[in-house]
Amino acid sequence: MFTITELSTERINRIVTEALAFANGKTAKIEGEVFCSNLFFEDSTRTKTSFDIAERKLGLQVVPFDASNSSVNKGESLYDTVKTIESLGVNLVVIRDKKDRYFDELKNIKIPVINGGDGTGNHPSQCMLDLMTIYQEFGKFEGLKVGIVGDVKHSRVANSNAEALRRLGAKVYFSGPEQWFDEGALINGTYLSVDEMIHDVDVLMLLRIQHERHDSKMSFSASEYHRKYGLTKEREKAMKKEAIIMHPAPINRGVEIDTDLVECERSRIFRQMQNGVFARMAILKEALENQGYAFK
Amino acid sequence: MFTITELSTERINRIVTEALAFANGKTAKIEGEVFCSNLFFEDSTRTKTSFDIAERKLGLQVVPFDASNSSVNKGESLYDTVKTIESLGVNLVVIRDKKDRYFDELKNIKIPVINGGDGTGNHPSQCMLDLMTIYQEFGKFEGLKVGIVGDVKHSRVANSNAEALRRLGAKVYFSGPEQWFDEGALINGTYLSVDEMIHDVDVLMLLRIQHERHDSKMSFSASEYHRKYGLTKEREKAMKKEAIIMHPAPINRGVEIDTDLVECERSRIFRQMQNGVFARMAILKEALENQGYAFK
Amino acid sequence: MFTITELSTERINRIVTEALAFANGKTAKIEGEVFCSNLFFEDSTRTKTSFDIAERKLGLQVVPFDASNSSVNKGESLYDTVKTIESLGVNLVVIRDKKDRYFDELKNIKIPVINGGDGTGNHPSQCMLDLMTIYQEFGKFEGLKVGIVGDVKHSRVANSNAEALRRLGAKVYFSGPEQWFDEGALINGTYLSVDEMIHDVDVLMLLRIQHERHDSKMSFSASEYHRKYGLTKEREKAMKKEAIIMHPAPINRGVEIDTDLVECERSRIFRQMQNGVFARMAILKEALENQGYAFK
Repeated sequence: MFTITELSTERINRIVTEALAFANGKTAKIEGEVFCSNLFFEDSTRTKTSFDIAERKLGLQVVPFDASNSSVNKGESLYDTVKTIESLGVNLVVIRDKKDRYFDELKNIKIPVINGGDGTGNHPSQCMLDLMTIYQEFGKFEGLKVGIVGDVKHSRVANSNAEALRRLGAKVYFSGPEQWFDEGALINGTYLSVDEMIHDVDVLMLLRIQHERHDSKMSFSASEYHRKYGLTKEREKAMKKEAIIMHPAPINRGVEIDTDLVECERSRIFRQMQNGVFARMAILKEALENQGYAFK
Repeated sequence: MFTITELSTERINRIVTEALAFANGKTAKIEGEVFCSNLFFEDSTRTKTSFDIAERKLGLQVVPFDASNSSVNKGESLYDTVKTIESLGVNLVVIRDKKDRYFDELKNIKIPVINGGDGTGNHPSQCMLDLMTIYQEFGKFEGLKVGIVGDVKHSRVANSNAEALRRLGAKVYFSGPEQWFDEGALINGTYLSVDEMIHDVDVLMLLRIQHERHDSKMSFSASEYHRKYGLTKEREKAMKKEAIIMHPAPINRGVEIDTDLVECERSRIFRQMQNGVFARMAILKEALENQGYAFK
Repeated sequence: MFTITELSTERINRIVTEALAFANGKTAKIEGEVFCSNLFFEDSTRTKTSFDIAERKLGLQVVPFDASNSSVNKGESLYDTVKTIESLGVNLVVIRDKKDRYFDELKNIKIPVINGGDGTGNHPSQCMLDLMTIYQEFGKFEGLKVGIVGDVKHSRVANSNAEALRRLGAKVYFSGPEQWFDEGALINGTYLSVDEMIHDVDVLMLLRIQHERHDSKMSFSASEYHRKYGLTKEREKAMKKEAIIMHPAPINRGVEIDTDLVECERSRIFRQMQNGVFARMAILKEALENQGYAFK
């Protein structure tokens, strides 16, 4: 699984349903001895650990891979590295890489490759866990209003989520500093100010400010961002009764969100992390079943 | 378990007894699928590997965590990192951190947190393994004379051990460069020169010179330290017949101890490492049993 | 197992036979709970992962060891580090180190030590997998002609392989830049130009150009190397019908070998990686059986 675009609505629904079953206590263990490895060429404890636990819960053997010491540093191509891992007998890999669409190089790899995030492009497992968290809350996507606030242009989370939500019948609003928007970013929704959308949304998705992805200095301070685009206590009070708050984490407390709201009643931030393991179990299981592996 | 101060004498004795049972061949395997993770924000192969093996011997699944690539480097708070690990379904964490009493921030974490060492404060699992090693030798603490030599002021090992030994009825002497002592360091024992205590002690605990913890340059060389405070061959000959030598390691050979004495008959240095796994098994098992987990 | 020199021809044949059995589907699981650890003080994803998977296939528990955070960085000797790992209850270690014959320091270690590569000296597990790959192809060593091209002087692969092949009855030719040859390098074979040997060899072993091992700048460019010593498409066409190509990887595509030949019909490069796991299983199993461990 590389992108959300390639997933049919039916397949998204099937994975969300399976993920919710895992959240409700379903278990599945793979038959036989199956090896997987998480090749993370860009740091991400959260996503990597989430996959790691999902893999162990499915009964896979997780072979450690330390990208910082790998032959990629000796100039080896990504293809040769993955082909090596495949040759060593690993049966599935999860890959995160800085390069957009790195997976286009991997056509000749025969084992399943799960995309753990590519460049500023896609992050399908995060998307599935976000969808699952919304469905768990509202029991539907159709007709929901979802506000996404932050650096939509550079966020693989925002792009994957907005596309999926639009296709599933939700209405998407965007907000954030205008320099972070261009026409491409607005394909799947409408730009509003945070104060215009806050009364109206069922789901408020805050994006992390990713200092590490911005080449030039940002033209505003953290406190300015918080005042203009952040979830302040006042804005939280203006939200609808049943509306929920989401954030992919790690959080910049006091920037995207007031620190006291991180664990408030309508926050689903840590629930998203819980769900991430179940969503990844569903994704991994589907990929392995497509290869003929059986679960009990 | 965070500090030795919080442990009753009865509880110390119970853990030491359980650890000795493991050393004598007792085994215990947890029931069900239980995940743990070792969050070491300060390097320590020895302690981390010791916990890792103890966890595996108890049947836990150890989820890898690489602090150097973690979101803490993106500015995430320790609380948010640990809360994330908890949300991902990890059932117990061991933490080592440079910050004194880091655990005070973690009150809202619901899974057991085991202290693998905090700043210059506490190192309870090292203390338990040291106590266990002494008890294994002498069958008691009451009335023993224990000399602790080195940087008592900056050593979490020295402070934890001295407090526990005093409470258990042993008499503690300290030695080492005077600039490394202040009133706080001497609460649990008396300062003597190494040559004054060497004839008298049952246990000689040498502390590692931790260059990395001293802000200013040390005012003496390694060979000077060895001559004044180190265990030389001459001093070893002056020790009582049954007296033993301990050191938490890693050893600076030729500084704290003559290289030829590291594996001499009265050295318990590598025995301490063996015991470390058993002491940690006892600590982990107690923490998990307190949460309702069962072992077979 | 430290060096090829210490292995009798009979023992080499026994390990190759066992490795081929694993390649053909044989399985073996150790009885009881046995711990191992891979202490790689020099980067090598390929070899480390290969050992890791071999260990897991044999049912061993692999205890992670991160050399970059280890006490070796605090000045601890290799002996003290390995003695520590042994004391913690690890039952077997695989070691790779920059130092030639590092294992000479480890005489007092009681658990089996498997050499994962030392300095420019030995790399016995790579040798066994190369021998296995050749035997798998030709069913014999006697009378085969093997060309080894590259930096024979600094290559532990070349030296181990050339010695073993000569002892097993093969004829070894060498080629590569002349400054990379001295009398020592030519003990086990004859120097020829690549074009002189290419029509004649049954096996062409290309060595990786290891920029990281050359103190001074190389006196030729990558494209010059390719033209003079690399496997070009023209040279490949000149090879005998049944001849095969080998390379220990990672490959410098377009330097040692034309990129289009990496997966050509006579290439056994990824097969070598597959075989590596089986060869290491055979090596590990032999070492553990010698210590009295049983497999089922």
